Amino acid sequence: MPEEVSEQSGAQGTASEQPAGQEFYAQLAKLSAEARWTVEPGPWSPKPASVPMHWKYTELRPFALESASFVKSDDAALRVVSLINPGHPERGAAVGHLYTGLQMLNGGEAMTAHRHAASAMRFVIEGDGAWTTIAGDRLEVGARDLVVTPSRLWHEHGSGAEADADPVIWQDATNDPLVDTLGANFFELLPERRQTSRPVTNSTLYEHGYGMLKPDGRRASRYSPLLMFPWEKTYEALHALARVSDGSPFDGIFMEYVNPSTGGPVLPTMSAHMQLLRPGEATLAHRHTGSVVYQVAKGRGHSVVAGRRFDWQQNDIFCVPSWAWHEHANDDGSDDACLFSFDDFPTLNSLGLYVEEPLEENGGHQ
Amino acid sequence: MPEEVSEQSGAQGTASEQPAGQEFYAQLAKLSAEARWTVEPGPWSPKPASVPMHWKYTELRPFALESASFVKSDDAALRVVSLINPGHPERGAAVGHLYTGLQMLNGGEAMTAHRHAASAMRFVIEGDGAWTTIAGDRLEVGARDLVVTPSRLWHEHGSGAEADADPVIWQDATNDPLVDTLGANFFELLPERRQTSRPVTNSTLYEHGYGMLKPDGRRASRYSPLLMFPWEKTYEALHALARVSDGSPFDGIFMEYVNPSTGGPVLPTMSAHMQLLRPGEATLAHRHTGSVVYQVAKGRGHSVVAGRRFDWQQNDIFCVPSWAWHEHANDDGSDDACLFSFDDFPTLNSLGLYVEEPLEENGGHQ
Amino acid sequence: MPEEVSEQSGAQGTASEQPAGQEFYAQLAKLSAEARWTVEPGPWSPKPASVPMHWKYTELRPFALESASFVKSDDAALRVVSLINPGHPERGAAVGHLYTGLQMLNGGEAMTAHRHAASAMRFVIEGDGAWTTIAGDRLEVGARDLVVTPSRLWHEHGSGAEADADPVIWQDATNDPLVDTLGANFFELLPERRQTSRPVTNSTLYEHGYGMLKPDGRRASRYSPLLMFPWEKTYEALHALARVSDGSPFDGIFMEYVNPSTGGPVLPTMSAHMQLLRPGEATLAHRHTGSVVYQVAKGRGHSVVAGRRFDWQQNDIFCVPSWAWHEHANDDGSDDACLFSFDDFPTLNSLGLYVEEPLEENGGHQ
Amino acid sequence: MPEEVSEQSGAQGTASEQPAGQEFYAQLAKLSAEARWTVEPGPWSPKPASVPMHWKYTELRPFALESASFVKSDDAALRVVSLINPGHPERGAAVGHLYTGLQMLNGGEAMTAHRHAASAMRFVIEGDGAWTTIAGDRLEVGARDLVVTPSRLWHEHGSGAEADADPVIWQDATNDPLVDTLGANFFELLPERRQTSRPVTNSTLYEHGYGMLKPDGRRASRYSPLLMFPWEKTYEALHALARVSDGSPFDGIFMEYVNPSTGGPVLPTMSAHMQLLRPGEATLAHRHTGSVVYQVAKGRGHSVVAGRRFDWQQNDIFCVPSWAWHEHANDDGSDDACLFSFDDFPTLNSLGLYVEEPLEENGGHQ
Repeated sequence: MPEEVSEQSGAQGTASEQPAGQEFYAQLAKLSAEARWTVEPGPWSPKPASVPMHWKYTELRPFALESASFVKSDDAALRVVSLINPGHPERGAAVGHLYTGLQMLNGGEAMTAHRHAASAMRFVIEGDGAWTTIAGDRLEVGARDLVVTPSRLWHEHGSGAEADADPVIWQDATNDPLVDTLGANFFELLPERRQTSRPVTNSTLYEHGYGMLKPDGRRASRYSPLLMFPWEKTYEALHALARVSDGSPFDGIFMEYVNPSTGGPVLPTMSAHMQLLRPGEATLAHRHTGSVVYQVAKGRGHSVVAGRRFDWQQNDIFCVPSWAWHEHANDDGSDDACLFSFDDFPTLNSLGLYVEEPLEENGGHQ
Repeated sequence: MPEEVSEQSGAQGTASEQPAGQEFYAQLAKLSAEARWTVEPGPWSPKPASVPMHWKYTELRPFALESASFVKSDDAALRVVSLINPGHPERGAAVGHLYTGLQMLNGGEAMTAHRHAASAMRFVIEGDGAWTTIAGDRLEVGARDLVVTPSRLWHEHGSGAEADADPVIWQDATNDPLVDTLGANFFELLPERRQTSRPVTNSTLYEHGYGMLKPDGRRASRYSPLLMFPWEKTYEALHALARVSDGSPFDGIFMEYVNPSTGGPVLPTMSAHMQLLRPGEATLAHRHTGSVVYQVAKGRGHSVVAGRRFDWQQNDIFCVPSWAWHEHANDDGSDDACLFSFDDFPTLNSLGLYVEEPLEENGGHQ
Repeated sequence: MPEEVSEQSGAQGTASEQPAGQEFYAQLAKLSAEARWTVEPGPWSPKPASVPMHWKYTELRPFALESASFVKSDDAALRVVSLINPGHPERGAAVGHLYTGLQMLNGGEAMTAHRHAASAMRFVIEGDGAWTTIAGDRLEVGARDLVVTPSRLWHEHGSGAEADADPVIWQDATNDPLVDTLGANFFELLPERRQTSRPVTNSTLYEHGYGMLKPDGRRASRYSPLLMFPWEKTYEALHALARVSDGSPFDGIFMEYVNPSTGGPVLPTMSAHMQLLRPGEATLAHRHTGSVVYQVAKGRGHSVVAGRRFDWQQNDIFCVPSWAWHEHANDDGSDDACLFSFDDFPTLNSLGLYVEEPLEENGGHQ
Repeated sequence: MPEEVSEQSGAQGTASEQPAGQEFYAQLAKLSAEARWTVEPGPWSPKPASVPMHWKYTELRPFALESASFVKSDDAALRVVSLINPGHPERGAAVGHLYTGLQMLNGGEAMTAHRHAASAMRFVIEGDGAWTTIAGDRLEVGARDLVVTPSRLWHEHGSGAEADADPVIWQDATNDPLVDTLGANFFELLPERRQTSRPVTNSTLYEHGYGMLKPDGRRASRYSPLLMFPWEKTYEALHALARVSDGSPFDGIFMEYVNPSTGGPVLPTMSAHMQLLRPGEATLAHRHTGSVVYQVAKGRGHSVVAGRRFDWQQNDIFCVPSWAWHEHANDDGSDDACLFSFDDFPTLNSLGLYVEEPLEENGGHQ
């Protein structure tokens, strides 16, 4: 029961005034037990340990580039500059239980294939020639393309560019912190080190990329059988929707990447969105349970998160903790701003814990 | 219990030998009852009343064109040449409980808006300028485009072409015979006769046509919120799949039109497919419960249905009754053949009654 | 389009006035086609062919008893007095696409094991010693017990009573007419003629009969893994609910037999209900799509179905066609009346076709 | 990537050997970022922070009884002796993210009504007269009865016994630690302090306690509409199952309390089980993801958890962390042992993270 209760009741006060209690509490502790009335009670509303953060790409990029000098190609899965929320550094998360970091690959590099129970996504920031092979499907990706790496599928990454080409930098996005704390993570390296790929690159797009039709007989899968979402189609879809919709007052033209076999989120634990803020558009504030990591895919603007203003530009990363008020604005009056984001909404929804409210109806969360 | 049982047991024989039985049966009949052992028992395997049929477009087209002289524009919902399976003419169905017919519209015509509990689809055969307005979304469609009209949504059709333009002919596809026999059909005319349309034509395509993303927050709907499937994208999807798949031995490159909000069939009672038979391709025979109406969208070839050979060309219609063996062939060695089809597989699946088997494993249906 | 349309438009009139039309229609018929505007159009609301019926047990019982003289024990699956709705005698259904009949077994008789794609239920009317073996589980049943026989499970019936004991009569309930007309019925006899039973009789009750708990790890099944519902528990449940609920204004204390693995209907195509009309209780009228067969499990009273009054007593059977208004009354002021019923509501719900309305809100069905 | 990778690759070594790295890492830290290759990587298999624990009731009971002297009746929601896993004391959890504690009520006491987003269960250990009112349904419970308190339903507890009666002690079970760490917990006090109850006590049992039937028209609910599970029926169900099943090699006769509206777990985030170990029965070892808290409902025996042996007797509490090997034995050769348990399996299943394996097949978790 939260703090206000104890203030009303004086329960804590009563306890601390009794010298007799000291011995009681000490003996309890020896039994690996404690008196609930002495512990700060749970909150009236969510009080996550995470704080709002803004990471500027111009500051992070040099470190990402330099990381190759510390970790060799085979281990490039570790060659990541992780973004760490100072509210809970021990968790290794950018916000809530979401991990994110910048991963860098030089031309010609390739890492050992592996798999894990945690789910992952990758959003390409810069560089040509990057590829990911997932369950035998080799995907070639460029800037602003999204790659989905479902739980337990073998995968490996690399760059097919020339050795002296500009490096690839992408944003790694996983829910390792959640799966770790639930005691449910597994990690394996592929003994053969490299998967054998299907003959046609980007097969996933040919099978599942047309949206209106599916290969007959395909069953619903909890993760998206479409493993790659090209930027070109994403941006086209945003503008198509903008022709016929005013969008959300809180998020502008807001679209969710979908698992075509279910119409639901691309992963059972995380979803990904892309939103278009039209030139000069500013949204209203709202809040919801669930954590979000944003990546500025295009443009410049600002967001206000729990009272902190973040002036962002392309490739910057910022986060919104659970239940924090937030609003966004495109500060360019003549060009689009696009925000890519990933979140744990599907986790919250699965557990019946997702709630949201607009700033206007501040009275209640139900 | 089927015929073989009665032959083994002589139950019918026993009954008919007993003169005393005659009075028994006569009295039973007066009570609206009958002796089950005197009735031909149910079949060992499906014996639908439908027979395989082939309707040639060249024969039907003149009647479709002439139909305008019988029915005026407002009533064009009735201006249809219905295809009637001679196995059960009283049912008004082309095969099983599926209705189909050819509907014709002259330039500038428009019919009264209506709605019904039965579900419908329309596949355009020829002519420019056709439009359908469904739940306020005006759709403009051309040859080989598919329009889905879900149960209970208001809809109306017309042609926006000049009055002297070539008429539009499309194929109407509904499950009226099923909904009628279940005693569950409702029909209403819109009092205002015409719906008000949303300002942008083909809004459904802008909202739901990109497949990889959806407008955020859209819930799963049992019918497809995407109401129109353009031929160009359909044909492109077939060829994309053909790059990475050998296809089905029974159906070639076989794709299902999907409800993007669920990944399932476009309607809860009927699904639609398009299949590509590559130049010279001939498929193996199989059979399944559920009825299918085919429309030759492109090319020429033949199908063998329950031992009857149908040599078809573009725009022909043929049907496969439930549990009938069937196989298809593209008889053109240098061009594609494409078969559009609609069926009641979702109905059978919902009721747990769908089974299929290849010709090779003729022994059993489970 | 229904009759009122054609009256408004004169479409039929126009057609019939044109002598030229005669040749048109004749030629169309040769192509297995017809002009839709010449056919009586579909109804504005459901107009099923079924008529309300009431079968009195005192009239049917002598025929059920005599049936043993026509059909020997092995073929007792055929030894049924079928109730035939005179609205569509060719369908072999009591109402809609539901089959029902009275089946009789003498002591010591047993029939050959079989299975079919249609689903079935049995409700015992009189006699001791009846047993049914379903998928190896031998069930021993008495009056008013319900047995569920899911699609495709092997089953056989018999009586374990002494040869000179009073015979068993139960009511057979299946959806054979639906599965037949969909072209999806299969029928097989077990080559070994008899199943081997599990050692403990009524195992299904021990595993699944306690409702509050389930054997761990059991998955949801579309049909009820609980295969038998004893009357004693059913009647107890009705009275328990009556302690805390006023019940339905249309049906009194109305409970559905449930599939404990899903909380849904006992079969994917049919559901079963038991309702308690308290002494003197009379319900309000309502109507719905879907057909219902009632069996008077206890008491006496009357129902009004589409304007026809049926005065029923114990063991009588009556039916309500789709969309027919109906209301019930317990005419005994001092004792309960209980109506068992089975219906095709799950079929209608699966297809999105179930609608209902109270008499008061007669204006619309949606 | 786990430790073995870094050992193979020397990534960490490489980093630490480079003096230049020190400055790199220091600067990164200023940006709220860190080098992933310097952090101990995620585990090859789950390594939860929780340790196996055994709390003896004889040791805890005196503290529970004394707790009334610290906290007054209104605040009795805080009058709990919490069991704290020493592996992560800051989490306030008994194991994983599951909270449990002993709550005590004297006769005549009642606490303020409240609700929260976390889910809860209560299992009564001793004392008569306890009641819980949930969403207006007053439940009266005795020893070994289970009460389910779904997320967001108003509830309050009390004891209806005389003031000088023996106190009630029950075990509180919640997932507060999970909902807190997800930033999704809400807590409210009912302004009126007490709910108005429905006239009949234990209404939930009358409506939903019969298992075989449900009040017609009730929809599936993610939490159990049956809010109370009496011990008498639970124990009867265990013995019924034991008549027809050998049970699980790992858990004996193992049953799950079910949500009768879905056949699934009683809560979307937690499930509850009761298992019967027959006289002298000893189970095989297995492990699974997900955490479990056990309460010895009856009997005496021992369990081995991750190599630690716990000799338990009635009312003791012990826990099994995720992925820990465990096995159980009833050490009494002539009487039953029964273990009640609650767990987070539904959470793991919702997120696709539940896996299990027997000791024999130690090779892999998939």
